[in-house]
Amino acid sequence: MPGAGRAAGVRRLRPQPSEEPPAQEEDQDLLLAAAYVSDAQYNRNVPFETSPRAIRLYYFYNHWTMQVAIYFFICVDLSLALFEEPALFPLPFLATSIAEVLCLTAFFGRLVHFAKVTPQMVFWKDMKNICIMVTIVLTLIDLIIYGSLEAVNIHSVRWSRALRPVFLINFPESRQIRRTFRSIRNTLPDILYVFLLFMFSVLIFSLMALKLFGDRGLQTVEGLPYFTNILEIAFELYVLVTTANSPDVMMPAYNFNWWYSLYFITYIIINTYIFMSVFLAVVYNNYRKHLKSGVGTSLPPAVLFLTTQIILHGLPPVNLNEIRKLVYLKRHKMIEAFNILKVKVGTEFVVTEARWKRLARIVMPHISSPHLELLLRISDEGQKGHVDKMNFLRLADLLNIQVVTINIKRHPLEEWMPRVYQSSASLLVQRMVRHRIFVWVYDVIILINAIFIALDEKNPFISYAEWLFLSLYIIEILLKLYTYEPRAYFGKKQFWNWFDMLIIMAALVATVANTTIQSARKYNSQQILDIVLILRILRLLRIIVSIQRFRLIVTTLINIGPTILTFGGLVLVVYYVFAIIGMEAFHGKVRFFDPNFTTPDALVCGNPALKDSAFARDRYCKNNFNDLASSFVVLMELTVVNQWHVLAGGFALVTHQAAKLYFISFHVVVVILIVNIFIAFILEAFFVAYSLEKSEVETAIEKKIQELGVGIQEEEMQDGKLVDNMDAKDSGFSGDDGDNKRKALKGLYFRIASKKYRTVDALLQQMFESEIAPEDEGPSLDEILNFSPGDIYPKNPNFENSA
Amino acid sequence: MPGAGRAAGVRRLRPQPSEEPPAQEEDQDLLLAAAYVSDAQYNRNVPFETSPRAIRLYYFYNHWTMQVAIYFFICVDLSLALFEEPALFPLPFLATSIAEVLCLTAFFGRLVHFAKVTPQMVFWKDMKNICIMVTIVLTLIDLIIYGSLEAVNIHSVRWSRALRPVFLINFPESRQIRRTFRSIRNTLPDILYVFLLFMFSVLIFSLMALKLFGDRGLQTVEGLPYFTNILEIAFELYVLVTTANSPDVMMPAYNFNWWYSLYFITYIIINTYIFMSVFLAVVYNNYRKHLKSGVGTSLPPAVLFLTTQIILHGLPPVNLNEIRKLVYLKRHKMIEAFNILKVKVGTEFVVTEARWKRLARIVMPHISSPHLELLLRISDEGQKGHVDKMNFLRLADLLNIQVVTINIKRHPLEEWMPRVYQSSASLLVQRMVRHRIFVWVYDVIILINAIFIALDEKNPFISYAEWLFLSLYIIEILLKLYTYEPRAYFGKKQFWNWFDMLIIMAALVATVANTTIQSARKYNSQQILDIVLILRILRLLRIIVSIQRFRLIVTTLINIGPTILTFGGLVLVVYYVFAIIGMEAFHGKVRFFDPNFTTPDALVCGNPALKDSAFARDRYCKNNFNDLASSFVVLMELTVVNQWHVLAGGFALVTHQAAKLYFISFHVVVVILIVNIFIAFILEAFFVAYSLEKSEVETAIEKKIQELGVGIQEEEMQDGKLVDNMDAKDSGFSGDDGDNKRKALKGLYFRIASKKYRTVDALLQQMFESEIAPEDEGPSLDEILNFSPGDIYPKNPNFENSA
Repeated sequence: MPGAGRAAGVRRLRPQPSEEPPAQEEDQDLLLAAAYVSDAQYNRNVPFETSPRAIRLYYFYNHWTMQVAIYFFICVDLSLALFEEPALFPLPFLATSIAEVLCLTAFFGRLVHFAKVTPQMVFWKDMKNICIMVTIVLTLIDLIIYGSLEAVNIHSVRWSRALRPVFLINFPESRQIRRTFRSIRNTLPDILYVFLLFMFSVLIFSLMALKLFGDRGLQTVEGLPYFTNILEIAFELYVLVTTANSPDVMMPAYNFNWWYSLYFITYIIINTYIFMSVFLAVVYNNYRKHLKSGVGTSLPPAVLFLTTQIILHGLPPVNLNEIRKLVYLKRHKMIEAFNILKVKVGTEFVVTEARWKRLARIVMPHISSPHLELLLRISDEGQKGHVDKMNFLRLADLLNIQVVTINIKRHPLEEWMPRVYQSSASLLVQRMVRHRIFVWVYDVIILINAIFIALDEKNPFISYAEWLFLSLYIIEILLKLYTYEPRAYFGKKQFWNWFDMLIIMAALVATVANTTIQSARKYNSQQILDIVLILRILRLLRIIVSIQRFRLIVTTLINIGPTILTFGGLVLVVYYVFAIIGMEAFHGKVRFFDPNFTTPDALVCGNPALKDSAFARDRYCKNNFNDLASSFVVLMELTVVNQWHVLAGGFALVTHQAAKLYFISFHVVVVILIVNIFIAFILEAFFVAYSLEKSEVETAIEKKIQELGVGIQEEEMQDGKLVDNMDAKDSGFSGDDGDNKRKALKGLYFRIASKKYRTVDALLQQMFESEIAPEDEGPSLDEILNFSPGDIYPKNPNFENSA
Repeated sequence: MPGAGRAAGVRRLRPQPSEEPPAQEEDQDLLLAAAYVSDAQYNRNVPFETSPRAIRLYYFYNHWTMQVAIYFFICVDLSLALFEEPALFPLPFLATSIAEVLCLTAFFGRLVHFAKVTPQMVFWKDMKNICIMVTIVLTLIDLIIYGSLEAVNIHSVRWSRALRPVFLINFPESRQIRRTFRSIRNTLPDILYVFLLFMFSVLIFSLMALKLFGDRGLQTVEGLPYFTNILEIAFELYVLVTTANSPDVMMPAYNFNWWYSLYFITYIIINTYIFMSVFLAVVYNNYRKHLKSGVGTSLPPAVLFLTTQIILHGLPPVNLNEIRKLVYLKRHKMIEAFNILKVKVGTEFVVTEARWKRLARIVMPHISSPHLELLLRISDEGQKGHVDKMNFLRLADLLNIQVVTINIKRHPLEEWMPRVYQSSASLLVQRMVRHRIFVWVYDVIILINAIFIALDEKNPFISYAEWLFLSLYIIEILLKLYTYEPRAYFGKKQFWNWFDMLIIMAALVATVANTTIQSARKYNSQQILDIVLILRILRLLRIIVSIQRFRLIVTTLINIGPTILTFGGLVLVVYYVFAIIGMEAFHGKVRFFDPNFTTPDALVCGNPALKDSAFARDRYCKNNFNDLASSFVVLMELTVVNQWHVLAGGFALVTHQAAKLYFISFHVVVVILIVNIFIAFILEAFFVAYSLEKSEVETAIEKKIQELGVGIQEEEMQDGKLVDNMDAKDSGFSGDDGDNKRKALKGLYFRIASKKYRTVDALLQQMFESEIAPEDEGPSLDEILNFSPGDIYPKNPNFENSA
């Protein structure tokens, strides 16, 4: 019952605005209002009960320790597969089952907690909760059956293990992964018809191949009959779509007659190029299609403007309907909070300054007083001692804006010994370090270093050179620290300086470790030596730092990192399910022997069925499903696609030809669906990152901050010249009145949340917000929730911003 | 000098509007005006001289025979490579060189013709013309040198052959291919930096691999040392990016230690997935980026509206600047034409009806009188006997609109023998045919037929069944012709009916041919038999016709066909250049022997250097550069990527390791650039096709036609019920006055040019046009041409529409 909170708020008889409520009730009200504000700030959309106990539970539910704990248990649950048969590190069944029951208890506890917080109706209507409960029950049943069968020494299948990713998907914290799954589900109908047509085309071509080549008596390179069985032809042609057996599958026919190459070229153009591109188009189109639904005729002008901006800057479209819903929900929560705290002053309802401050302190316990003063200054511009409704509604956004103090600081050395630091020699050094040639010289040094690394390091001269290079790098860092203000140089946002420093430190550690090991010769551990080697080579990455264009590309890639991580979660879920199935089906069928071990058994991977197979010939014995880690490697190889038909053929030989279906379905799910979604992801993320670099859309709040003269642009911050003499930390704030505001606020600035981390969703949301009149309370909650049939999944951009 | 035409028009002293000019000059004026109108209609933007002789030459220049001739010569020139050494069909050098000189003469002639038509300044400023001339001269020089060296028996290189595609690119008719090349050129700077960073990453990983695996003494499956040489490692890792040697390149290290798989997985994620996606993103972004430049603040509202439409419907952005330029150029030409023909009537300048009609007849010689009358009716709404400026400017667009007459016709059988046709038995048959079950029954028949085809056809029973199926299909067609009006059933737009009919006819011919051959047993030609087989199987495609969703997908694919063809031209150019280079470099190094021929020489493809190589082991001998056709097949295999390292390795063995550079550069150019452009193409085309299905943007002209009640919607046309009783042909038109217009125009309707073939360019252009006020003559020609630095490349959508 989404309206419960509101109804409760209305139902309770509120005391007259003029008389203060009793302290106990006042605290309750503040807590409830703070919960609404906090939800608005982080875009959480969990309806909760408004009884005092429920509110306290809700605070506890949202506490970060609870979220960390639940993720910890999910990780433990998923990693149990490493210790269960077939295990990488075997543990007795009792140990793993106890661990599993523990995890299940934790999940159930979390669910019970949630049920106490949220209205019953909402809880039971939510498919996610049902899913988790069903999975818990199924897992317990499976555990009991397996355990009792094990007790009488009957080996059965632990099928419930494939359900474990359900927990990862269904907890409310994994919104992004759910969103991706929903995206896949929405794509399926479109994909399905294209896929059917594609399969139809493969079958038609198979029939043609059977008729054209079946009776020719042609042979493959291995001397097997060529294209005589319709099922084998269909499989071979499906493999050709993945290009994995090109051109081998064509060669016998092509050798027989030149004209037959036309058959294969036609096939490749139609099925490999056109159909595979259409799959990508359908998947990508799905992102765009969402936009159309739900955009009514009543688009506010700002959104019309933004859609134009989107087209002009090449931003990808997003689901306007969902954005609209999010904005209204947020507005709704803020109004709810306002209604709880409001008192009547003159003709209008307002929130008193004291209450407003207490609220802010509950929502953000660690807020500094100057920060709070500044927020109040913006919210209560006229210094009237209270915050009106319009300004109150902004609070959630205000809290999301980062605040830093900027002090123009001098170099510490300059303070301690100004004479020396300002001497002409010292100034010359500083000018030198700032000069472009300084960078170039070090680029050349890195290149020479690369050549030295490539050369044989047994040579003692080269070993000494290592030390030379290392000291050169350290001198560079010291010179930079001498020239630039150290606290500014290692400022929070100076990613590249940190990167540079860390690489050199790592290389220093690595070289020292290497020397120690080489001189000691006792713990000549392979792994440590390998890591040392890699660290020393990674030093060459410094060259990226000094080339502007490279830095830009890498920055873009790092910015789309979060998107790729979401995608990683999706891949993990699919891999896990396929790995569990694969381990149950193919476990122990193929065994790996030491490469130097050349008995006949080792050559066929311990399975005579593989004799003369391509699988054994290519020495793929280690590509097996004998434990979770190996399974993941095999699945990775299948994702890369090349030679997947050899792997599929091998496992079909040791089990049954139907095993190929497992590999084909993996290809369809992972390569046709997920890899295409990944590409669409990257395309989208790339366009956003590319466009936001240049877009200059400001919201009303940002304008306000600029008007007050207390905002600085991200660009200024990143500009080297400014950073040279700046230091970012919270500092004292002295209240002063409006007239010489600029001077008073000196040293304390709002920094508008980094544009880099903004998503189109966030932009659109802000645009919508600035459009809704402060009086507009939006449609009723039920109406909002019915905007679209799907459930609410905020992309939670503000959370990212504030993190 | 782009303004030449206009200047000439102004310079000439025009007679007073009231007195008619002498017939001779009148003809000249009309011709000139018609040339402008025609250019506006087809979006041609060639500035031409306005002297009577130049105009006549210009007409001749634009005649379709001339364009066909020039394409014929380009084809001949390109196909010469089939007959030159190394030849598929050898011809003496004298024959090919004479043919080549002939082609060059034709190209030169076309150029001279163009020079006579266009102002000298324009001609010499155009890089295309310079390119063609330089290529002609270079080719002649090469021919002479090669010929004289041949005469004294010295074999040299015919390097100028690689330049032949220049002719294909640079003639004005190949705008689309030039556009694509320009797109590639624009992408290059962005691509370059990503590529450099990518290569840097490959090198860093190579260094790591050398350090990690170099000293381990590992061996590949072939027993060769594993990862010991930095250059070989870099090549292997580059191949891994293309996935062609996965997982083989990993196996030795993976077999040695499980942890090393992490190195390869990291490498694949970074370089194969992320970098390759970034390449696609950069290429695709290039399409979108164009949009930003040149969109000023002064966008007309309609364009703002359309950009919103684009975002709502997910259309890809296009270059608004170019569109604006095209629209203004078109407007400019129409005003030019109007100025030539105008006479003063009352206070305003107009074009008399007689002149207007003569003009239209010159522009479209085959226009029917009713069509012309209808156009006049729209242009001269008030029946005032003249056309005002605003209506005149629309002429080019009016001429592009298709016109059809719709007559509600009865079935011929109904006319001939109404009693029989309307009898209850006949009506039952008709209802049956129209019923859905009729379609389903035939779907089942097709499926059974597919199974029969898959079965062994040696069985006489199955051979007879063939005839049964065929007669069933023919009965179906006859029944449909009985039920539906035949001329409507085979109407111009009834693609699927034609498709159905042709497939069955082909199958009929094929089955008859097959029986003849099998009974005669004398001309048992392999090729004919193969074609017969394929035709019989293609019959199964009929199933697509009966499934609505399949038909939609195929229609979309067919609609993006023209785009794919443009792309085909681009691929042809690149393939041709690489094939010529490959033939010069690798000709004769690898020879193909009959597969049954198993001498040691045949097993190593006639080259001992290939002993024990993967190239010989996989029997790739026929993948060679010994003639143009084989080269194209090899290049196709390289495009598909799989096993390309085996091909590269083979050709490196028979020549030099540097030969791998040829294959790497082919990969970079074709796979990284062109295939990504192809994917971007398909994505773009798919989105356009998908969106236009639903968009309902009408231009002013279309509205006008609707107002007059003489337009019918495309949808109505395609609707089966309407088509049942309709017939499309030009029919008589009787002039009638405005009041009962609707009745008078009965039987003659405008069909708005099919939306399917509309591009976003065309839509935007129309939007711009409807925004420009009729009085607005736009900026001066020079200003228009300076809108953007690139030259003019219209996508020429109207031409496609009118074709």
